Amino acid sequence: MKKAENTATWRATLHEVIYEADTRAGKLFDIALIFCILASVLAVMLESVASIRAVHGGELIAIEWFFTILFSIEYLLRLLSVNRPLKYAASFFGVVDLLAILPSYLSLIVPGTHYFLVIRALRILRVFRVLKLVPYLQESALLMDALRASRRKITVFLYAVLTLVVIIGSMMYMIEGEQNGFTSIPRAIYWAIVTLTTVGYGDIAPATPIGQALAAVVMIMGYGIIAVPTGIVTAELSQAKMRTVTTQACPHCSAEGHDADALFCKRCGEKL
Amino acid sequence: MKKAENTATWRATLHEVIYEADTRAGKLFDIALIFCILASVLAVMLESVASIRAVHGGELIAIEWFFTILFSIEYLLRLLSVNRPLKYAASFFGVVDLLAILPSYLSLIVPGTHYFLVIRALRILRVFRVLKLVPYLQESALLMDALRASRRKITVFLYAVLTLVVIIGSMMYMIEGEQNGFTSIPRAIYWAIVTLTTVGYGDIAPATPIGQALAAVVMIMGYGIIAVPTGIVTAELSQAKMRTVTTQACPHCSAEGHDADALFCKRCGEKL
Amino acid sequence: MKKAENTATWRATLHEVIYEADTRAGKLFDIALIFCILASVLAVMLESVASIRAVHGGELIAIEWFFTILFSIEYLLRLLSVNRPLKYAASFFGVVDLLAILPSYLSLIVPGTHYFLVIRALRILRVFRVLKLVPYLQESALLMDALRASRRKITVFLYAVLTLVVIIGSMMYMIEGEQNGFTSIPRAIYWAIVTLTTVGYGDIAPATPIGQALAAVVMIMGYGIIAVPTGIVTAELSQAKMRTVTTQACPHCSAEGHDADALFCKRCGEKL
Amino acid sequence: MKKAENTATWRATLHEVIYEADTRAGKLFDIALIFCILASVLAVMLESVASIRAVHGGELIAIEWFFTILFSIEYLLRLLSVNRPLKYAASFFGVVDLLAILPSYLSLIVPGTHYFLVIRALRILRVFRVLKLVPYLQESALLMDALRASRRKITVFLYAVLTLVVIIGSMMYMIEGEQNGFTSIPRAIYWAIVTLTTVGYGDIAPATPIGQALAAVVMIMGYGIIAVPTGIVTAELSQAKMRTVTTQACPHCSAEGHDADALFCKRCGEKL
Repeated sequence: MKKAENTATWRATLHEVIYEADTRAGKLFDIALIFCILASVLAVMLESVASIRAVHGGELIAIEWFFTILFSIEYLLRLLSVNRPLKYAASFFGVVDLLAILPSYLSLIVPGTHYFLVIRALRILRVFRVLKLVPYLQESALLMDALRASRRKITVFLYAVLTLVVIIGSMMYMIEGEQNGFTSIPRAIYWAIVTLTTVGYGDIAPATPIGQALAAVVMIMGYGIIAVPTGIVTAELSQAKMRTVTTQACPHCSAEGHDADALFCKRCGEKL
Repeated sequence: MKKAENTATWRATLHEVIYEADTRAGKLFDIALIFCILASVLAVMLESVASIRAVHGGELIAIEWFFTILFSIEYLLRLLSVNRPLKYAASFFGVVDLLAILPSYLSLIVPGTHYFLVIRALRILRVFRVLKLVPYLQESALLMDALRASRRKITVFLYAVLTLVVIIGSMMYMIEGEQNGFTSIPRAIYWAIVTLTTVGYGDIAPATPIGQALAAVVMIMGYGIIAVPTGIVTAELSQAKMRTVTTQACPHCSAEGHDADALFCKRCGEKL
Repeated sequence: MKKAENTATWRATLHEVIYEADTRAGKLFDIALIFCILASVLAVMLESVASIRAVHGGELIAIEWFFTILFSIEYLLRLLSVNRPLKYAASFFGVVDLLAILPSYLSLIVPGTHYFLVIRALRILRVFRVLKLVPYLQESALLMDALRASRRKITVFLYAVLTLVVIIGSMMYMIEGEQNGFTSIPRAIYWAIVTLTTVGYGDIAPATPIGQALAAVVMIMGYGIIAVPTGIVTAELSQAKMRTVTTQACPHCSAEGHDADALFCKRCGEKL
Repeated sequence: MKKAENTATWRATLHEVIYEADTRAGKLFDIALIFCILASVLAVMLESVASIRAVHGGELIAIEWFFTILFSIEYLLRLLSVNRPLKYAASFFGVVDLLAILPSYLSLIVPGTHYFLVIRALRILRVFRVLKLVPYLQESALLMDALRASRRKITVFLYAVLTLVVIIGSMMYMIEGEQNGFTSIPRAIYWAIVTLTTVGYGDIAPATPIGQALAAVVMIMGYGIIAVPTGIVTAELSQAKMRTVTTQACPHCSAEGHDADALFCKRCGEKL
């Protein structure tokens, strides 16, 4: 480690092991990492169960700290081995990697916050990239594309639903009143959302005939309303699938996106 | 304000500020309006929470009246600044604007009706127009078109569902009887709607084996029935999307079905 | 009524009034019939509410009998005025018309069966035909076509779902046992259906950790399973819409069902 | 049975009766088998009902053993009559046939395991093959194809949902705490799944305002999330339907996209 060259080699090797999965060492590191993440999330979950905490509380907290220190070292190595550490730290996975260790240290000051450690589960999203599951990545991209294309329709839809539940909730608050569990408008709005989304806990339920009649109308409406996001996403996904059918690029102007049965380039008129 | 010309200018400026969002003043007015609406709806909702009302009841009612007077002035200005006030008053937003201030005055006569003020939330629907969110407007129009095209199918579907719940409800009333919570046919119909829409509160649930068997059949039917409105809306939305793609016909071979961005006929290579 | 001719005219007029809606009398008869049906169904429903029955029980039963006698006379007139009475009696609406009056007479022998009178609601299905709501009929036909085309897929799907709930129910019965409400396999199957269809009453809910884990798996499966009938119906409806695009008939062989962009008959090769 | 020839004939006949449904004997055997399976599954289900077991427990256990012995003999005959018994034993139906008799013998050692006999219901899946319900088989294949093609998208979707419920569950555990029924993170995750899938038992429900606000967000998300698997399956099914339409290419102009029943090219009129 005396020569700069040595350091460069050392950093390059470290980078390959941590960030890539092409070499044997890199693949082993990634698989080990996934197991560590799963084990640490499991430890946090088990530690929250009172009966298990009573017996194995000490061991589980030790395991949590073991993984926290391990992930802290890993985070530092990631920062060291990359050329532009700040860019990594500001990236999506960089932020997740940091959030995956902070709650442990935070719990020394504010007790109970260590349950935030479950955010580590997000780190496993790397698994698709790491194990070169390219077809899965493509399918994810297709799904994300469809959802992004539906963005505006879903915004309009969500605003309409929110306005609706505010008005329905207020009506139910006036109809049912506090004696039937509709103690305030926010609580009545909560009921309206529970009903419109067809969840239906039953912790609050209308008791008066008029309230039940309105609830029945809301449920029938929920039927129609649930069809809208489904319709939006389905139409986008069908569209996305069709787009994948069009493959050819024009040999002259290299325009893409031609129909499967196109004979001439729709951009320059050249024969395909 | 002595000359008619002055009045005309004054009205034109007012109209531009209140109804348009092209000028700086108009945009500021619209954004301020949206914040006022949100604040006033929030005040009404908080006032309905018993614990908050006990402490801040006076302030919240004062805030409600402040906004009511503000919106009343705005409503009068809207009437004044428009050329045909009656046409505005009879339009959708004219009626909503009026309904957004009436409950306050009504609550002086009939206590409790001021909760109807939440109808103000509808006023925010203007936001899409005001902030020139044209793509959102187009998407809304597409959604509305799809729903309008599904109108008849959904009417037929709703009538079939209503007939079904009346018959199912009556059967359950006879099977389960009053001792199991099915105290009347209307209440049993309410249960049938709760079940068929998969809401399932659990406030009324069949207790006899035959009742549970019938309920199981109803649920499985609900599975198939929920597919129908979804299918209707999805088919219309897919259709609507397709229409936006196909537009031009080739002037030479009159082939159709070109993409919106096509410059040449994909069949004969002629310029479109 | 002495001459056969007279009888024929009398029967023809009656037939036109009762079965058709082209004449003024026929239309009036049909509208009056719909109001009678709605009123009689409403009377049966109100009669089932204990508090209303206590006060107006006598009147409501009188109304029920009034409508029963009215519908009995109508049924006899329908039999008389039609050329082949047996064919009418065996048709769908003939059976419904009979079932709509039988429960009243049956309730003289078996008390309580008069609630079956709600089957009268089915008679209103005539409304679409009677009022010449042709577009609605077409849309109903389209819906029925789509459902009929999905018949086999839905049968396969239903059988798969039934097998699944039997196996899941038995597993839950063994895991949760009688102390947690899963008192028998049929009851556990009822729970499985309630869960898989996302109704979720909560009258029976798993209490052991293993039972809750299995329930979670069932719910996630329900997510995927609910997608299947929706997908089937949607695909059929989209297909049905597309078929309606193809209109032309071949001038030579009069084959139908050509694509919108077809230039030659796909049956005989004739130019379209 | 002294000659090898005789044995061969005997085995061939047995094979035809058990495995085929072309002959009268084969069809009868298959129908008898289906009734036996249904009867035995029904016996197991009834035996689990305490009130029925108290009265008819002995008979029902006798019936179970009768069918177990019958199915054991059938299993042995299946092994004997097939040329490669091991291949049958390792096939899907071979394993199901074995699992359908094992629980009875197992219950002699571990009491209560005989309820696993309901796995016999899976044997009826043969019904589609046995009764030559070819169109049903084709439709099943189409459904399976669509589900298989959606495999990767559904895996990605499931992983995203699992990560989501872990994080939501942990947040609710911290917000609501043990006093409101959220006694541990696994239990809170169970609640998150119950809510996100819109099942909504109501056995655990948020009681604090912040918890109810988060629950409302989760439900609205569930709305959007339920649209994703539906969209995936629908897009695949629509695609699958389209594939069945497009088959041939014109030998003259090589145009594609002809209907399955097309005899002539719709583009150039050439015979296909």
